[in-house]
Amino acid sequence: MGTAILLKDVTLRDSRKDVLIERGRISKIGPAGESAAWQLAGDLDMMDCSGMVAIPGFINMHTHSPMALMRGIGEDMHFHAWLDKIWKVEEHLDHEFVYWATKVACLEMIRTGTTTFNDQYWFFDSSVQAAREMGMRIATGYDVIDKGSREEAERQKEQCIGKSEAFLHRNDPGHIYELAFHAIYSVSEEMIVWTSELAEKYDVNLHIHLCETRKEVEDCKAAHGGLTPVEYLDRLGVLNPRLLAAHTLWLSPHDIELLAAHGVHCIHNINSNTKLASGYRFLYNEMRDAGINLCLGTDGCASSNNLDLLEAMKTAAIFQKAWRDDPSALPLGELMDMATVNGAKALRFDAGRLEESAVADLLLIDTDNTFFLSPGPFLANLVYSAHSDCIDSVICDGRFLMRHREIAGEREILAEARKVLAKIA
Amino acid sequence: MGTAILLKDVTLRDSRKDVLIERGRISKIGPAGESAAWQLAGDLDMMDCSGMVAIPGFINMHTHSPMALMRGIGEDMHFHAWLDKIWKVEEHLDHEFVYWATKVACLEMIRTGTTTFNDQYWFFDSSVQAAREMGMRIATGYDVIDKGSREEAERQKEQCIGKSEAFLHRNDPGHIYELAFHAIYSVSEEMIVWTSELAEKYDVNLHIHLCETRKEVEDCKAAHGGLTPVEYLDRLGVLNPRLLAAHTLWLSPHDIELLAAHGVHCIHNINSNTKLASGYRFLYNEMRDAGINLCLGTDGCASSNNLDLLEAMKTAAIFQKAWRDDPSALPLGELMDMATVNGAKALRFDAGRLEESAVADLLLIDTDNTFFLSPGPFLANLVYSAHSDCIDSVICDGRFLMRHREIAGEREILAEARKVLAKIA
Repeated sequence: MGTAILLKDVTLRDSRKDVLIERGRISKIGPAGESAAWQLAGDLDMMDCSGMVAIPGFINMHTHSPMALMRGIGEDMHFHAWLDKIWKVEEHLDHEFVYWATKVACLEMIRTGTTTFNDQYWFFDSSVQAAREMGMRIATGYDVIDKGSREEAERQKEQCIGKSEAFLHRNDPGHIYELAFHAIYSVSEEMIVWTSELAEKYDVNLHIHLCETRKEVEDCKAAHGGLTPVEYLDRLGVLNPRLLAAHTLWLSPHDIELLAAHGVHCIHNINSNTKLASGYRFLYNEMRDAGINLCLGTDGCASSNNLDLLEAMKTAAIFQKAWRDDPSALPLGELMDMATVNGAKALRFDAGRLEESAVADLLLIDTDNTFFLSPGPFLANLVYSAHSDCIDSVICDGRFLMRHREIAGEREILAEARKVLAKIA
Repeated sequence: MGTAILLKDVTLRDSRKDVLIERGRISKIGPAGESAAWQLAGDLDMMDCSGMVAIPGFINMHTHSPMALMRGIGEDMHFHAWLDKIWKVEEHLDHEFVYWATKVACLEMIRTGTTTFNDQYWFFDSSVQAAREMGMRIATGYDVIDKGSREEAERQKEQCIGKSEAFLHRNDPGHIYELAFHAIYSVSEEMIVWTSELAEKYDVNLHIHLCETRKEVEDCKAAHGGLTPVEYLDRLGVLNPRLLAAHTLWLSPHDIELLAAHGVHCIHNINSNTKLASGYRFLYNEMRDAGINLCLGTDGCASSNNLDLLEAMKTAAIFQKAWRDDPSALPLGELMDMATVNGAKALRFDAGRLEESAVADLLLIDTDNTFFLSPGPFLANLVYSAHSDCIDSVICDGRFLMRHREIAGEREILAEARKVLAKIA
């Protein structure tokens, strides 16, 4: 948890405050200047934050972080052809690749304001190691994908239980252990049910892809007597509040009812969906009105092609405004919730709001640039006008991950990543 | 034109080169290292560009730069309600506002890689002064908007001729003088024809808004016997290769034929169109296939809300891919041309290609960061992955406007802009 941090004269919800951070939590918030009278222990890291605005750290709710070293390998392709290509490349990956690629992803996420990410990838142990060394909070775990092979299913069952129990015993609060199965088209019915029951047993989340393409829905209907993917999962009994469903782009009104009734959390990934031409009419209003908890993700860099959640926020907003023909669609406050507190809710930890006793995951936004010179509201400037380089500093779990745009170890990570890329070229 | 510049070991179209810039032009390009043998005069500014890629400076073909200080004043509104609000605010502007607001816009454009911009605004003399002091190339001039008032039309005719002749006599190669009329719904038929004839007489471009909203098209049809705005302008005889038409979002096949046949240049402004929910189905393929020269713009900050052409490139690409259900839509090479050489062609100057004897407007891209760590092509990394903060240095007309992210006078401009904002608050 490190040294206590005192942020002096930082703007918080439009008023100037002093903020004390201790043992990974926001311990005290008072009017700017008041901290001079606080009784504070000796070992204190003070930062003058005048001209800076504090907001919660972003929570990237769907990515495959090691794809940070796989950008551009499948440009201009439709989703299913793209996935075949990706799967071929992935046969050659190893722990070393995943470790350094996740480090690269962490650099990029920290620079763009993400403090927690929900990941799904091969060799997740190496991603956990990389993310925790970078000081980030990661949600990830064993990803089941048997592609219909019974032999592979049996192998994965054994490995999944072994890995899961080892990681659950570690009890690292910075690693939110979860299970995953890739998607209904790549995992057998038996393994979908098995993984879901294991998630229930361990009381952990289950991270999946769902209704990403029209083809997925059509294929499912053809294979399962007209059931949509959501109806199919409902029949298998795996819809519940532990389910984190990425994409949910092609939904019927009945699908939305089912997702809402079972408390499934849904994750919008607009950059990936549009770049792969999977679709863009994400039913934000309908899902929100049904009461579904809606989060935001970037997806992996091989599809989207970066990990910038602030960029994803703007893209999500303008796509909603555009296709709905409604300039007031996806209001900024709701968009911020999607990128912060809604993710924390899905991952069941106490972040996303800058209040006393909350987890100290926060960003310091530098407003001393053209993008914030405006009579308009801060959030409009942040989302519609600025870029992630306005993020001066990033604090996660009460520690600086980036301070005035400096990240410890950045040069070494870039150098090691180049070696890894040269090796697989 | 300043001192000669030698860029050593810069990557140009995938190979490493030395590039000499003299008197505002690229005078020599040779293999990296070769410049050691060149006979070069004494006063030389050398820059080590290893790890950097040179690309042409961006040309923002449609903006209203002084709106850089009007961000956020009309959020979440449809175009026509928004425009009414903007017009009310604009009644209170003056030369001082326009001068400092344009300086702010120039800061933002330089930081995001624009070297030339095509502007349309009140008090354009002050924008010209500001842009030229910043070293940028600006295309702008008198903007006619009589809103049907005969008295206003007569006043504007006189003022337009006076200003035009004064600026044409200045003969500043960094200011491309042009005329403008706002749009068919805000300018009388007589003044549309008058302005077009004056543009012909002076042989300058004419910058207009065209087919920005469905309402504009419907109102035009109702008012002009079923003619679309393009057909209406054709009937008035004002379609020709001097016409720079911003938006062109709601076009019939016949409109596209007319625009192509008359050599009209069209400018796509995706961020503005989507944020104001004006539309998103820009007919890129159809217009390109008809032979229309297609350019890119950001529009003004009150609508879009920034001046970042690199962001506009990505947004344009993913909207085309999304609504066309085609991940190969708007290929990267064509997108780069839209943002560079096509604008130069429309403005009739010799930039947009990094070749010997071309105008020395160029950007140096720093690839030493996560966004370019990839086996994929450079342009994919630049457009889909990186942000404009990868732009290390900007050269316009053979002079550095930004060097290693430093722009001369930036602090003073931000301070003066804050004073101007405080005054109008």
